[in-house]
Amino acid sequence: MTGAIETQFAVERLLARYVAAIDEGRLEEWPRFFTQRCRYQIITRENYEKGHPIGIFFADSRGMLEDRVASLREANIYEAQRYRHLVTSTLITDEVAGIVSAQSNFQVVRITEAGAMALFATGRYLDRVNSNGPEPLFTEKIVVCDSRRVDTLLALPL
Amino acid sequence: MTGAIETQFAVERLLARYVAAIDEGRLEEWPRFFTQRCRYQIITRENYEKGHPIGIFFADSRGMLEDRVASLREANIYEAQRYRHLVTSTLITDEVAGIVSAQSNFQVVRITEAGAMALFATGRYLDRVNSNGPEPLFTEKIVVCDSRRVDTLLALPL
Amino acid sequence: MTGAIETQFAVERLLARYVAAIDEGRLEEWPRFFTQRCRYQIITRENYEKGHPIGIFFADSRGMLEDRVASLREANIYEAQRYRHLVTSTLITDEVAGIVSAQSNFQVVRITEAGAMALFATGRYLDRVNSNGPEPLFTEKIVVCDSRRVDTLLALPL
Repeated sequence: MTGAIETQFAVERLLARYVAAIDEGRLEEWPRFFTQRCRYQIITRENYEKGHPIGIFFADSRGMLEDRVASLREANIYEAQRYRHLVTSTLITDEVAGIVSAQSNFQVVRITEAGAMALFATGRYLDRVNSNGPEPLFTEKIVVCDSRRVDTLLALPL
Repeated sequence: MTGAIETQFAVERLLARYVAAIDEGRLEEWPRFFTQRCRYQIITRENYEKGHPIGIFFADSRGMLEDRVASLREANIYEAQRYRHLVTSTLITDEVAGIVSAQSNFQVVRITEAGAMALFATGRYLDRVNSNGPEPLFTEKIVVCDSRRVDTLLALPL
Repeated sequence: MTGAIETQFAVERLLARYVAAIDEGRLEEWPRFFTQRCRYQIITRENYEKGHPIGIFFADSRGMLEDRVASLREANIYEAQRYRHLVTSTLITDEVAGIVSAQSNFQVVRITEAGAMALFATGRYLDRVNSNGPEPLFTEKIVVCDSRRVDTLLALPL
């Protein structure tokens, strides 16, 4: 069981560092949690379950994630609000050749500059983590949002 | 401390599998997280603290839980909405002869088919887990809801 | 890695016991999670990031926390409502001479006596835990609230 506990610890720690970077506004660090070639997707549960590949946001390289950060900074979208992620119930579902599959429940609260708090999104992270390097990195992160109403203009890192 | 960490890991993993089954709509799996003879109860904090045995829902066997699932499926209640559980702060309070007592904080968000998200319930899980079999199972799960306003028609698995 | 896992377990367990005491209304136990000389502060993110020392609440000894509990009991503020804490993404950031630095994301839901539930606060715990004694204790706990709108009259333990 020791190996399973170590894997659990490593994945939970990666997730904790990931949400800390986003919630503290260190957006530029966000792409560095991914491998160079990767898959990051935000998709509604409805489209995910129907197998429709149409997502709210899709990137298949760290470079695309860096471009996204640049756009968000330019539009000043991030400055007017903050996010707070809660991530629970992380479940390791598979591990093959150092690639760990895990899923977690998440919730994001949005806090406007004026101080209003609102539930922004809930859903599941479906992650694949490469644990072969010096530190674990996401090689795939599919963010499945429960609600079909997702503000696409605000497609901030989830 | 290794034994304590292993117990913590096993209970958290059981809870993660439990909420994943409910949140993904795999309702039929829900009763299988319990022993054949068990105790599952949803109760308000007020009644729980006063020692009033009147709960919102009560079952003392896996069969009763299966009946509940059948009723929910028949009424199509589950199809029009989804749930997202957050479970944190799991605390092992006791362990005697392979029966582990644990408590956790939980929150459930309800997502309607139209996409509206709302806080549905918060409270505590008071669990007793039988860890003597091939996989851990709930022998008792008391769901203590903080609010006295609980929609009893929607007494879905919590 | 075993040492890191043990530290993680100890800090998460302290946090779980801490929020359980508050959420179950065992307010008198709250000060006992701190060392005699300590630092407990509630502050908005805005003031924290600007380095403004003005907080919503500040205490630098267990005695001041005990006084706070006495005031809250006298004013009956606590009786009319309950809280439910969710704490996730606990990240150990440092450990020197048995003092562990950790940060976590938190969310608090307030439940009124009438049964209304509302998101009360979100933010970060910045903790320093003294692990040299018979049981770990907070020597510092800075509660950084995301929203600038915090009801100071309700400065209950967070």
